[in-house]
Amino acid sequence: MVVLASRSPQRRAILEQLGVRFTTAIPDVEEVTSGEPGDLVADNALRKARAVEGDCVLGVDTAVVLDGVAYGKPGDRTEAGEWLRRLSGRRHEVWSGIALRSGARERVATAMTRVHFRPLEPSEIRWYVATNEWRERAGGYAIQGRGSALVERVEGDFWNVVGLPVRELVRLAPELVIGRSELD
Amino acid sequence: MVVLASRSPQRRAILEQLGVRFTTAIPDVEEVTSGEPGDLVADNALRKARAVEGDCVLGVDTAVVLDGVAYGKPGDRTEAGEWLRRLSGRRHEVWSGIALRSGARERVATAMTRVHFRPLEPSEIRWYVATNEWRERAGGYAIQGRGSALVERVEGDFWNVVGLPVRELVRLAPELVIGRSELD
Repeated sequence: MVVLASRSPQRRAILEQLGVRFTTAIPDVEEVTSGEPGDLVADNALRKARAVEGDCVLGVDTAVVLDGVAYGKPGDRTEAGEWLRRLSGRRHEVWSGIALRSGARERVATAMTRVHFRPLEPSEIRWYVATNEWRERAGGYAIQGRGSALVERVEGDFWNVVGLPVRELVRLAPELVIGRSELD
Repeated sequence: MVVLASRSPQRRAILEQLGVRFTTAIPDVEEVTSGEPGDLVADNALRKARAVEGDCVLGVDTAVVLDGVAYGKPGDRTEAGEWLRRLSGRRHEVWSGIALRSGARERVATAMTRVHFRPLEPSEIRWYVATNEWRERAGGYAIQGRGSALVERVEGDFWNVVGLPVRELVRLAPELVIGRSELD
């Protein structure tokens, strides 16, 4: 049984689809906001994994990166619209750090997925902002929701964009996923 | 309101996440099983769209293609395991055809996404076959379920692999998706 140190419903859903047995706890940490994307998300993931009690704790951090700048969550509708205009017709990167703390042992990995947005009309941006789906989403969109209509293609681990890099989780801790034989 | 000519719960889920208003009907068609992948899935999508009553009908067909051979659904556990051994450590293609019939007007498009499987251990293949998740799945895996643990990366429209190419749906019929302002 692993403890997911996150409040994200998307991360919970990914662990559920994999059949991982887990509980959740919300980490109270000060997050790093600057630095190289890979270092930043790895550092934040480790801080989260260390901030929660448990024999086996999983911390995850995700950042949307465009032109070397990391985007967190938009503060309001205006900012959400402005970010979509920047992402429109371009390719950006989604980075995740994943940290698994088992007793004194800590394993950390990162993943990067490229996401290509299609060119968006102003009316499409107004539509998406009005859905309110951008709230609480890194980069201001949800690729597993209405936001899928904004995307041209992805390259890499799709689940990393949703919020948890499945390929890296399986690499770090196959025992959490492989071997559970019955679908729940 | 569109009629989805499909029994697939995955296709229903994708239309729901997009906020498309739809009903479903199960098409009774004889499917084409040979030919170029793009022609095959386009032809089958159109047959499905024509086989169901409605003012606006959406037909979709998906095929997994490895070395030019289209794979449907595995017939039993042995076949499911054999197919996973073939897919292991390699890149395959997932093709979808999408056909939208509105009165006398028919619009058809195709999409292709590349999926790279990581190299799988025999024990991992046994595990996945035992989950039974391969049943009723083209190619014998579900990328949005336990099968996500088998995948190294994707290139293209992820939702095409789940069963409905969102990018092509939005291109063919933006009015079905864009403009609905409130999340249900």
